Amino acid sequence: MPFSTRIGVRFGDCDPAGLVYYPVLFHYCHAAMEEFFAARCGVSYARLMSERRLGFPTVNVRAEFFAPLVYGDEAEVEVWASRVGRTSVTFEYRLRRASDSKPCASAAHVQVATNLDERRAVPLPEDLRRAFEQSAEA
Amino acid sequence: MPFSTRIGVRFGDCDPAGLVYYPVLFHYCHAAMEEFFAARCGVSYARLMSERRLGFPTVNVRAEFFAPLVYGDEAEVEVWASRVGRTSVTFEYRLRRASDSKPCASAAHVQVATNLDERRAVPLPEDLRRAFEQSAEA
Amino acid sequence: MPFSTRIGVRFGDCDPAGLVYYPVLFHYCHAAMEEFFAARCGVSYARLMSERRLGFPTVNVRAEFFAPLVYGDEAEVEVWASRVGRTSVTFEYRLRRASDSKPCASAAHVQVATNLDERRAVPLPEDLRRAFEQSAEA
Amino acid sequence: MPFSTRIGVRFGDCDPAGLVYYPVLFHYCHAAMEEFFAARCGVSYARLMSERRLGFPTVNVRAEFFAPLVYGDEAEVEVWASRVGRTSVTFEYRLRRASDSKPCASAAHVQVATNLDERRAVPLPEDLRRAFEQSAEA
Repeated sequence: MPFSTRIGVRFGDCDPAGLVYYPVLFHYCHAAMEEFFAARCGVSYARLMSERRLGFPTVNVRAEFFAPLVYGDEAEVEVWASRVGRTSVTFEYRLRRASDSKPCASAAHVQVATNLDERRAVPLPEDLRRAFEQSAEA
Repeated sequence: MPFSTRIGVRFGDCDPAGLVYYPVLFHYCHAAMEEFFAARCGVSYARLMSERRLGFPTVNVRAEFFAPLVYGDEAEVEVWASRVGRTSVTFEYRLRRASDSKPCASAAHVQVATNLDERRAVPLPEDLRRAFEQSAEA
Repeated sequence: MPFSTRIGVRFGDCDPAGLVYYPVLFHYCHAAMEEFFAARCGVSYARLMSERRLGFPTVNVRAEFFAPLVYGDEAEVEVWASRVGRTSVTFEYRLRRASDSKPCASAAHVQVATNLDERRAVPLPEDLRRAFEQSAEA
Repeated sequence: MPFSTRIGVRFGDCDPAGLVYYPVLFHYCHAAMEEFFAARCGVSYARLMSERRLGFPTVNVRAEFFAPLVYGDEAEVEVWASRVGRTSVTFEYRLRRASDSKPCASAAHVQVATNLDERRAVPLPEDLRRAFEQSAEA
């Protein structure tokens, strides 16, 4: 089942056109992924990095932006793993305007399990693999 | 009575030394001020800007940083108005590490009530003045 | 002919893993696009927005990250328009590490000519269309 | 003699009011300080951190904002050391609008020479002390 969280749009996230600057939307995706780890994987992304020396750098991004998020909005962000490979995972993100569930953006990120000391790909640990797979179930 | 909120430190807020990059601490202060408006002033900062064309740009900052916030921490941010003038207000901010209340930073910002169309200082509206003054009471 | 510019990686652009935080790479793309307008289109992006009320919000992003940029690196960013439609343009970005031209990232952004007051798509102005098309020529 | 550099205001640096978001002004100060190290200290801030394990975290900030920088502006940033202590240095920053030298902001940052592995203050190395002192000379 997808994980869902809410992120309030802050003044400093918005550009002179009054919209959330699109690089910040990727920051929202990453923040939602961090919360997904804490809520679903039994380990915060911070501890995953510091204690297990594991990170998930992004190697591929596809994203579509349907409608702007503006200052004063709250974003509802859904995260789940649509594909779980040997060393990589594809996280899907859906961003909606919380007030009326209007779809604002969707994104898919391919992220690779990486040993932070050696900076090389490693197999997905089993505990994370299970948590990722469960996020895709109905 | 001061307003208090919690802000989780996100991965992207931190620098290569592993600490919250200090300009981001000011972003946290601003975010806490935005929440203060919504919670205490009866009007969100977003609506204040869009409907009443009023903003509070910062003209003076003093800040001290005692201890770093690091990735994985949650910040507890207190906000109150220590001085309420005719057109300006001094907001005080205290940032603590939520896990053990360790003081991390304090800041005072002088902010000026500004008409956004004419970009000039205006007297503090009475509803805001009252909310500011109440934040400083014991 | 593609436009090329250099962007120095700053301390605050990097994350606790020591790499440029990937949302910041999109900020670099946007910065390069802004410089492209000033250098090739005869109008800065700032004046395009303020005087002609025209912007180019992003509606679709595809990106691949091959190698990290780290603190101390300088990025060489190339920009050109690979497809020029009636109301939209696809900007291609190539990011290399300047010291050895190592490819670090590529991205394609579909961006829509948008009237900022009415927030609707408008046909590409002829002066911009020509500049976009010339950027794709050998 | 103060070090001076120019920083172009980017679209994403600005807030919905059209002004550079004030936390970003501190990012500009830090960027100018990084350039100061490369130009005046014979060592980039990146190499100082990676090779000598030395950083200069900020412990105290005072800043005044006189006039806004807006999108389309270029900032001229001056940096010099107004006080060089045993383990700390006070960097002064002056930000002007480059087009007409209008003063926009001034800031003083007390920054402490810190061993990054042990996270404790260390005496200023002599080569840096000399470079800092020279920046304050007429």
